[in-house]
Amino acid sequence: MPSKKLKISDIGEKRLIKRLLSRSQKSIPHSPFFKRFFNEISLESLEDDAALLPIGEQYLVITSDLLFQPSHFPPEMSPQEIGMKSVIVNLSDLAAMGAQPLGIIMSMGFPPDLLLEDFDSLVEGILKTCEKYDIALLGGDTNQTDDITLCGTALGMVDRDKVLMKHGAQEGDLVAVTGVLGSAAAGFEVLLNYERFKDALNPKEKYEILKNALKPNARVKEGLGLSEGKATSCTDITDGLVSEMGEIIAASDQAIGMLFYEDKIPIKPIIEVVSRISDKSVREMVLYYGEDFELLFTISPQDFSSIQDKMEVHVIGEVTSSGRIEMIDKEGRTNLLVPRGYEHLRS
Amino acid sequence: MPSKKLKISDIGEKRLIKRLLSRSQKSIPHSPFFKRFFNEISLESLEDDAALLPIGEQYLVITSDLLFQPSHFPPEMSPQEIGMKSVIVNLSDLAAMGAQPLGIIMSMGFPPDLLLEDFDSLVEGILKTCEKYDIALLGGDTNQTDDITLCGTALGMVDRDKVLMKHGAQEGDLVAVTGVLGSAAAGFEVLLNYERFKDALNPKEKYEILKNALKPNARVKEGLGLSEGKATSCTDITDGLVSEMGEIIAASDQAIGMLFYEDKIPIKPIIEVVSRISDKSVREMVLYYGEDFELLFTISPQDFSSIQDKMEVHVIGEVTSSGRIEMIDKEGRTNLLVPRGYEHLRS
Repeated sequence: MPSKKLKISDIGEKRLIKRLLSRSQKSIPHSPFFKRFFNEISLESLEDDAALLPIGEQYLVITSDLLFQPSHFPPEMSPQEIGMKSVIVNLSDLAAMGAQPLGIIMSMGFPPDLLLEDFDSLVEGILKTCEKYDIALLGGDTNQTDDITLCGTALGMVDRDKVLMKHGAQEGDLVAVTGVLGSAAAGFEVLLNYERFKDALNPKEKYEILKNALKPNARVKEGLGLSEGKATSCTDITDGLVSEMGEIIAASDQAIGMLFYEDKIPIKPIIEVVSRISDKSVREMVLYYGEDFELLFTISPQDFSSIQDKMEVHVIGEVTSSGRIEMIDKEGRTNLLVPRGYEHLRS
Repeated sequence: MPSKKLKISDIGEKRLIKRLLSRSQKSIPHSPFFKRFFNEISLESLEDDAALLPIGEQYLVITSDLLFQPSHFPPEMSPQEIGMKSVIVNLSDLAAMGAQPLGIIMSMGFPPDLLLEDFDSLVEGILKTCEKYDIALLGGDTNQTDDITLCGTALGMVDRDKVLMKHGAQEGDLVAVTGVLGSAAAGFEVLLNYERFKDALNPKEKYEILKNALKPNARVKEGLGLSEGKATSCTDITDGLVSEMGEIIAASDQAIGMLFYEDKIPIKPIIEVVSRISDKSVREMVLYYGEDFELLFTISPQDFSSIQDKMEVHVIGEVTSSGRIEMIDKEGRTNLLVPRGYEHLRS
């Protein structure tokens, strides 16, 4: 019997990346120039939200995200919002490392029949977001593709002793997030089932709920505050809370776990309205959907007291030594959760 | 009569980029951090092969290229060759700035039915090329797309007083290239019309001609040599010789032109064989097709004498004050050439 050849969708994005990285660890440059410039190269950053290059007392932080219209931009997203999101996803990765963003380069692919006015709006969205976060558009090029494809590469800087990584969480640390969760998921739910929601929500509610999906923000200031405030680990929530908890646990060199309380997770009341009308539970939207671009971090209780007045933060639980992710639900029961979230290339 | 709405293909890639850049020049960050970090930001680099960020006495050079299977990878290109090319195009941009490459980040999109063995070969191609040029793979992520989409972002460093830009050519400078032209064009010609060439070329010839299209090199060492050797301007030939000449002329703040001799352009004899069998003249392949990834540069006659023994270089003409591109053909006639080359998004 001939063995069936494996497709990449048989193993999924996360294992693909591990496969890629396990191979790349072997190839570190040997040139004297490389060694002169980088007294060390931080390969641990390969599995983090962004790559780190040591320059003097600082790290240059570099992140790159490829967004592809059919996967990342719902049809309702305007060209300006598409441009905005292409910058935000990269800034969010820099925020997760505690970096001060400096600039972005945009490599863009467009279908030839894209209207010039839509191109202009998309560029407007990119530039407005650059202005809002006070970064420079450092370069850009355009190519021809079948669907809009935007690859942003953002650069930032952070002091080497202040960089936030996925690893570093300690037993006894608090687990916290920078804002409400599940709102983007609720927004996408409304977009995907618009007929069902058309008359159930008033225009103000519709605007409020769609805003989270269509016009996300990056928690840059919060990332800087967490870096100053000695958070022990951090990542941005792009694939869902539980999935990102799994990332922080896996990145630790200790056998840590997390325990959190369902009723401590901050949500907007309106997502309960969305949940009632849709098939999705609030829990599902809050735990397993990402795109809110909030930061998930750990911090010692002492250090937490010094940051809590400086920004919006919500403690949801603590770092344990269980090796597991446990949720105390609203009824007081302990639930064992398995990291899962949105994953590309997973059939 | 309602006016027809313009599509981006009505204006083409080059004008789109100018449109993008003219808007972005207005948005330079104002934050004290930005000003502390960058005592200046070199916006002139926006129209060059890569972006420049001043760090101390050096520039960090950043370039990003988006490659899309239907446009950039002929079906005959193996997954390993696809991986190689995705690194080479970026290294070529760094070479054109005279920069020492340091590392690359790859954002990749794959169709879910891609075979795992092809994914592995592609990654192998990326890593082999990183090893060959002694750079690090600094990070990578994967996404789901319909066609293979590779966005590489490469970083390099160059001393600030040695950076090579498109501007800077002076009247009286020599115009030169680092190697033979038209070979990649001939290779693509064979690939596109394989039936016609199948029996006309022997295997050795086929290998020789296809190699240029399928396994290009980046002129990194030559770029470094030209940077040390005081070339006055430089770019890599991705869109064709005449098109790149037009770029150097347009980038100059003086009214310069170029005059060159058709019979001085270095070619491989085999492209004459390809030309005889195909409909394409040697002249067309040499002047208007790119992808050879050779460097086109200008340099003073005195400085040229110090570099000519250190690398392969071919003087093909000189910088004039005509404002035009003139070619003296093999018959001794002067031809006025208009920059055109491969351009994306041009209908």
